[in-house]
Amino acid sequence: MTRPRYDLELLLDVAIEEFTKRGYDGTSIEHLSAATGLSKSSLYHHVDGKEHILRLGLERAVTPLLGLLDEPEAREGKAIDRLTYVLRRQIAILADQLAAVTLLLRVRGNTETELWALEQRRTFDAFVADLVRAGVAEGDLRGDLDPTVVARLLSGTVNSLTEWYRPGHGSLSADALADTMLSSSLAGLRT
Amino acid sequence: MTRPRYDLELLLDVAIEEFTKRGYDGTSIEHLSAATGLSKSSLYHHVDGKEHILRLGLERAVTPLLGLLDEPEAREGKAIDRLTYVLRRQIAILADQLAAVTLLLRVRGNTETELWALEQRRTFDAFVADLVRAGVAEGDLRGDLDPTVVARLLSGTVNSLTEWYRPGHGSLSADALADTMLSSSLAGLRT
Repeated sequence: MTRPRYDLELLLDVAIEEFTKRGYDGTSIEHLSAATGLSKSSLYHHVDGKEHILRLGLERAVTPLLGLLDEPEAREGKAIDRLTYVLRRQIAILADQLAAVTLLLRVRGNTETELWALEQRRTFDAFVADLVRAGVAEGDLRGDLDPTVVARLLSGTVNSLTEWYRPGHGSLSADALADTMLSSSLAGLRT
Repeated sequence: MTRPRYDLELLLDVAIEEFTKRGYDGTSIEHLSAATGLSKSSLYHHVDGKEHILRLGLERAVTPLLGLLDEPEAREGKAIDRLTYVLRRQIAILADQLAAVTLLLRVRGNTETELWALEQRRTFDAFVADLVRAGVAEGDLRGDLDPTVVARLLSGTVNSLTEWYRPGHGSLSADALADTMLSSSLAGLRT
C-alpha cells in the first residue's frame, strides 16, 4: 500500500534541499508535506518531527565522514599518507552526498541536533589538524606554517567544492578532482 | 538633528548581517527598521527600498574587489606575480569587509541586484582563471593541472576564509594569513 523506505528517502531528499534553501527554522512540517506530497500523518509514520528529519538528513553526511576516521588507512601509517587518504575519501563522500554535506556545512543554531552536527564537524576537523601536526612532526610536511591554519585552509578548500562541484553529466570525477586538489594543495605543504 | 551618514552606515551594517542570517527574501523593511531603531520614513530618506539596501551593502565588497582588477599590479607583469598580488589583496579586502564579502558569497536569486552581484563574482573569478592560464603559458605554473579547476580551488580556499577567519583580537593578520595561503596553495602549483 505504501512504500515506506521510498517515502522516507524521498522525505530526506526534499527536506535536505529545503533546509539548505530556506534554513531549518524557516522550513515547517507543513511545507515538507506539501513539497513531498506526503500527508502529515504519513510523515509522522516515518519520523518523530522536524528535528528528527534534520538528524536523519545530516546523518547521510556525518555517518560516512566520521566512519572514515575509523578506517585503518586513516589510523595506521605515516601521517602524510593518512592525510592524503582522508582528504581523498572526504572528497568522495562530498561528491556522493553533496546535498547532505552542503546542509552539514550550513548548520548553525541551537537545537540539540544542530549542536551535535557542529560537534561532529569539529571532531572531523580536529582529526585533520592532528594529521597535519603529525606530518610536520614526522618531517614530511613543512614546519614553517601554522598547522592549525593549514588544516583550516585544507578543510576550507574541500568544503568549498560544495559551491561549484556538481558530479555527473560528464563533469570531473571525484577521484580526478581529488587528484588535482591533493596534487596542488598538498604539494605545497611537503618538505 | 539626524546623523545621515551614520544612519546609512548603521543601516548597511545591520542589513548585511540580517540578509546573511535570514536571507534577502526573509528580511523585511519592517525588520530592518526594528533592528536599527530607525523609523521607516528615516530609512526611505536614505534608500529607495530593500533592493537598494542590498545593492549598497554588496557594493562594500564588490567595489574594492572589482577595483582591484584595474590596479597596475593586477594588469602588468608576469602572471604569477599578478596572481599573487590579486590573491593577497583579495584576502585583505575579505578581512576588511568580512560581512559584505560573506553576503556576496551567499547571494542567490533573481532580483536585478542579485544577478548583478553574481555577474561581478563571475568577472572576478574569470580574471583569476585567466591569470592561472597565463601563468601556465608563461611556464611558471604547472601545466598538468586543469587551470579552471585550479582557479576554482584557489577561489574556494580564499572564500572559505569567511567561514572561520575573524580578524582582530590578537588573531592572525590578513597579511600573515595571505602569506600562509600563498606559500602553501601557490607553492604546489609552481613548476
